Amino acid sequence: MLGLIQDKQLLVSSLIDYAALYHGDTEIVTRTVEGPIHRYTWRDVQARSKKLANALERMGVKLGDRVGTLAWNTYRHLECYYGISGIGAVLHTINPRLFPEQIAYIANHAEDTYLFTDLTFVPILEGLQDELGSVKGFIIMTDEANMPETTLKNAVCYETLLAAESEEFEWPQFDEKTASSLCYTSGTTGNPKGVLYQHRSTVLHSFAVCMGDCLALTSKDSVLPVVPMFHANAWGLAYAAPMCGAKMVLPGPHLDGQSVYELMDTEEVTMSAGVPTVWLMLLQHMQANDLGLPHMNRTVIGGSAAPMSMIETFEKTYDVRVVHAWGMTEMSPLGTTGVMTKEIEKLPLDEQLPYKAKQGRVIYGVDLKITDDDGNELPRDGKAFGNLLTRGYWITSGYFRGDGGDVLDGDNWFDTGDVATLDPQGFMQITDRSKDVIKSGGEWISSIDLENAAVGHPDVVEAAVIGIYHPKWDERPLLIVIKQEGSSLTREEMLEYLDGKIVKWWMPDDVAFVDAIPHTATGKIQKVTLREQFKDYKLPNT
Amino acid sequence: MLGLIQDKQLLVSSLIDYAALYHGDTEIVTRTVEGPIHRYTWRDVQARSKKLANALERMGVKLGDRVGTLAWNTYRHLECYYGISGIGAVLHTINPRLFPEQIAYIANHAEDTYLFTDLTFVPILEGLQDELGSVKGFIIMTDEANMPETTLKNAVCYETLLAAESEEFEWPQFDEKTASSLCYTSGTTGNPKGVLYQHRSTVLHSFAVCMGDCLALTSKDSVLPVVPMFHANAWGLAYAAPMCGAKMVLPGPHLDGQSVYELMDTEEVTMSAGVPTVWLMLLQHMQANDLGLPHMNRTVIGGSAAPMSMIETFEKTYDVRVVHAWGMTEMSPLGTTGVMTKEIEKLPLDEQLPYKAKQGRVIYGVDLKITDDDGNELPRDGKAFGNLLTRGYWITSGYFRGDGGDVLDGDNWFDTGDVATLDPQGFMQITDRSKDVIKSGGEWISSIDLENAAVGHPDVVEAAVIGIYHPKWDERPLLIVIKQEGSSLTREEMLEYLDGKIVKWWMPDDVAFVDAIPHTATGKIQKVTLREQFKDYKLPNT
Repeated sequence: MLGLIQDKQLLVSSLIDYAALYHGDTEIVTRTVEGPIHRYTWRDVQARSKKLANALERMGVKLGDRVGTLAWNTYRHLECYYGISGIGAVLHTINPRLFPEQIAYIANHAEDTYLFTDLTFVPILEGLQDELGSVKGFIIMTDEANMPETTLKNAVCYETLLAAESEEFEWPQFDEKTASSLCYTSGTTGNPKGVLYQHRSTVLHSFAVCMGDCLALTSKDSVLPVVPMFHANAWGLAYAAPMCGAKMVLPGPHLDGQSVYELMDTEEVTMSAGVPTVWLMLLQHMQANDLGLPHMNRTVIGGSAAPMSMIETFEKTYDVRVVHAWGMTEMSPLGTTGVMTKEIEKLPLDEQLPYKAKQGRVIYGVDLKITDDDGNELPRDGKAFGNLLTRGYWITSGYFRGDGGDVLDGDNWFDTGDVATLDPQGFMQITDRSKDVIKSGGEWISSIDLENAAVGHPDVVEAAVIGIYHPKWDERPLLIVIKQEGSSLTREEMLEYLDGKIVKWWMPDDVAFVDAIPHTATGKIQKVTLREQFKDYKLPNT
Repeated sequence: MLGLIQDKQLLVSSLIDYAALYHGDTEIVTRTVEGPIHRYTWRDVQARSKKLANALERMGVKLGDRVGTLAWNTYRHLECYYGISGIGAVLHTINPRLFPEQIAYIANHAEDTYLFTDLTFVPILEGLQDELGSVKGFIIMTDEANMPETTLKNAVCYETLLAAESEEFEWPQFDEKTASSLCYTSGTTGNPKGVLYQHRSTVLHSFAVCMGDCLALTSKDSVLPVVPMFHANAWGLAYAAPMCGAKMVLPGPHLDGQSVYELMDTEEVTMSAGVPTVWLMLLQHMQANDLGLPHMNRTVIGGSAAPMSMIETFEKTYDVRVVHAWGMTEMSPLGTTGVMTKEIEKLPLDEQLPYKAKQGRVIYGVDLKITDDDGNELPRDGKAFGNLLTRGYWITSGYFRGDGGDVLDGDNWFDTGDVATLDPQGFMQITDRSKDVIKSGGEWISSIDLENAAVGHPDVVEAAVIGIYHPKWDERPLLIVIKQEGSSLTREEMLEYLDGKIVKWWMPDDVAFVDAIPHTATGKIQKVTLREQFKDYKLPNT
C-alpha cells in the first residue's frame, strides 16, 4: 500500500525557486574574472537562470544534452548550474586545469553540445576547437565590453545571449532520477571517467550539507567556496546555499591568500571550504600581515588530509573551527565530516586534535564499511584497517558510458580505493590508498603511517614507503628518504629511530636514500612511478 | 537520460540502522508508564525493534497491514515506530484522548489488525473490544510483573512477546512510496480523516527537521518531545532523532510541570517541543520554585499560537530561544519554523518579539501561497491576507480511503483552512481560520485581530468575533465579550476603545455581552457554536 503524499520530484530547479522566493534579497558576491566585484541576489540568480534556460531552448538544447563549462566560481557559473540543469540538460563542469588533451578527451567523451567558457580559457579552447567534434558553439562568459578577439567559431557573448531573453520561464517537471550534472574524475591511471549525478541525488546531498551535524549551512551564513565549482559541485555548496538561503561569496580566479582574505573580511564570511594548499596560502598571508578572521566560525578542509599543524593554527590562533571532511567525486562528494561528539567537545583542545585529524564521522545517507581482501567485514574498533567501501543515496552506480565496468558488488558497495579504520563513534580515518598498502604475510602495513613516523626525524625532508617483492612474505616495506643537505643519516640510524614508534613487524626491510621523490600535480607522492623506479630492487637477505 | 547513482530507497528502517551503527551508545531515557526511569541506547532500540519485527511476522502481519498503538511517549512506542514500519506494515498511532466512540471509528476505518496499548488505556479498550471487528489481538506494553487482570481477548504481554524473538532481522527493501504510518486528524466537524505518510516523505521531512535553519537537531542535542508520538509523529522528532543521533528523553504519561522539569534538568535537555498549554504548566512550576533551565537552548512551540508573553518569558527570564512553528497533520507536520534572519537577530530582543510571534519562515521542501476566494494569488507583502495553500514533498495528496474527496487543486495545492499573511522575508502569520474570517463587501476582516484588540481593554475577560449577515455588506463583525465581574463597560465605551486601534471599516457593528463563550477540548473558541447561538441576531440599522 502506497502512502498518500504529493508526488513532487526532487529537482535542482526547486532549489533556486525556493531561494528566490524566500531569501530573495540575500546577496551573491563575486570577484569577477574581469576584475570588479559584482553583487546581486538570489532573486537575480533565478531571473537570469531563466533567461539562460530560454536561450538554451532557443539554441536547441534538449533534455539529456550535455553542456560543458570551463569556469571559475562566479555568478555566471552559478547561473549555468540552474539554467542548464533546470531545463533537464546535463551541466558538465570541466576542470580547466587539466592538460588540453584531457579536456578534449572529456568534452568528446561527453559529446558536449556547447561550451561555456571564462575569458581565461579562451586560448586553450582556440587551440583545441578543431578536435571538439560535437561542440556546436562557444559562449564566452563576459559582456560586450570585455569580449576578446577570438578565432573560436560560433563564439557568442554570454551577456548578449541573455539580454535577448525573457525572465519568464516555467521549469519543466521530469523524473528526479534524470541526470543533472557530469563531472570527470582525474584518475592517476587511465582516462578520466565521468560521474553522472541525478537531480534526486543532488537534492538529497544538499539536505545533508544543511544538517546541523554535517556542514550546518544556514541562512545566517556567508559561505565562500574556494573549492572550485568544476570539482564535485564545489562540494555541494552551490546547491546547498540556495536550499537554505545562505549568502554566497565567489572568488573567481583569484585564490591567493590576499584575495581570499579580502573577500572573507569585507563580506563577513562565516564558513569556507577548500583544500589544504589554499589554507596554507591564507594562513601565510594572515600571519605575515597580523590579520584575523572575526566573522569566520568554521572552515571545511578536504581533498587531502589536513595537517595537524594547520588544524591547530586555525583553532588556536584564529578561533576558527576546522571541519575535516572526506568524500569523492563518486560520492557527490560528501561521506564524512569532522563534527565532534558532545563528549569530545568537553575535552581540552589538545585532546580534541587527534579526533579532528581523522577524516570525520559518517553522515546519514552514506554507509561505510571496511573489509579484508576476501570481502570479510572488519571490526569498527578504530584499529583494524581495511578496504573502505561505501553505498548510499548519492553514491555512483557506475561511470558514464559504462567505463570501468561494474563498480558495485552484489550488495551495492562501491570500493573507494582507500584503506581506513572506523571507530565506535563513527569516525573514519584514512590509513592508505589500497594500491599503496603493503601486504606482508597476509597482514597489512600502512605506508602512510610509516611515512609519518619517518618524517619525524629531523634529518628527513620527505619519506615514501612502497612494498617490494619478498619471497616469503609477498611484500615487505622499503623506506625511501630524502635527507637534509649535508646530513650523514644512515640506514641503521633511520631504522633505530623508528624502533618503538611502530609495531615491530612493520619495520622497513631497507632504506633507500634518494635526491627526489616524484609528485602529482596536486602534490601527492606518485607511488606508481616510485614502484616502477624500484621494480627490480632486491631487499637484503632475500 | 538518467543519472548513474545507486538506487537506494528512502526507508524508515535506515534511520534506526544509522543511529545504531554510528550513535550506538547514545541514550534514550523514558519515564515509564509503570513509574521508574528506563535507560538504554539507540543500539538497543534497533535490537528490540528487530525482535518486534520478528514477532509481527510470526503473528502474520504483512506489508500494508495496519497496526495500531494507543501509547504515550516511551521507548516501547519508539520500538513500534521502527518494528512496525520496518517490515512494511503501517504504524497507526491513535490519539487515546479521543472519545471512545471516535477511537472505535478510527480503528475500524483503518482496519487495524492488532492494537498495542499502554496500561493506561486497557480499560478503554476493554469497553470497546466488541466493536473492533478487524482487531485480532491486543499487546499490552508492559512486562509480566505489571500485567493487569484484563478481559481483553487475545491479550499478550509486550515483553513476553519480544523475549521469544531473535535480534537478527534483515529489514525488507521496498518502494519508498510505501505507507509507513497513519494518523487521523481530529476535525471539529465530521468524522476523523486518515493521513497516510510514506517512508519517503517521512525521511525527507526528517532531513528538514535536522537542517540548521529548521529545528537544527544534532547529535549534541538531548531532545524531549512533550508533543505526543500519537500526534503527527511527535512533529517528526521520533524520526529525526535517530537520523542525527540525538539523545531522546521521553516523558511517558507525566506531562505536568514538575515531571517535565525534572527530566529536563536531570537529562540535560537542550531542546523540547510542545503546545502552549504544556509550557504554561512548566513556566508556572519554575516560577513557583525559582528554577532555571541552564542546559536548554531552544523550545519549539506549535499546535496553536504561542502567546507573546510566553515567548517573552522564555527568552528574557530563562534564556531559552522560542522557535514558533506551524504545520498540520496533513503536512507531516512541519511547514514553517520561527528561525530569525541575520538582520532580525541583530535587533534588541523587544524588537525581535513581533517576528517571533509570527508562525515562522518557510522551510525548503514546502511551498506556501495565499489566494483570494477566486484563487488569485495575493502579494507577499506581510499585509494582504488570504487562504493559505501548501504543496511539497511531505504534504498529503488525499485522505485514507478517499474520505473528503479530492483535496488538491490542479496544481497540487492543498488548502490548509487557515487565512494568513506572507512577508518578503518568508515569514507566515496566521490571521484567521478561513471559516471564521468575516467577508464584508468583498474584503476580509480578521476575527483574531479584532479579538486581540478587544482583550486589550482592562475590563474584557475574553472576546470573540463572528460574522453576522448584513443585507448590503454580506457580513459584518459582531464582537462578543465577557466583561469583568462588576464592570459597567458599555457598547459605546467598547467601540470607542477600539477606535484608532483597528482600521475604520473593521469596526464591529455591534457588541454583545455574554456570561460564557464555548470552547473546544484544546481551549480554542468554538466559533461554530457561537455562530449557531447568534444565527438570528440582527445588527442595528439593518
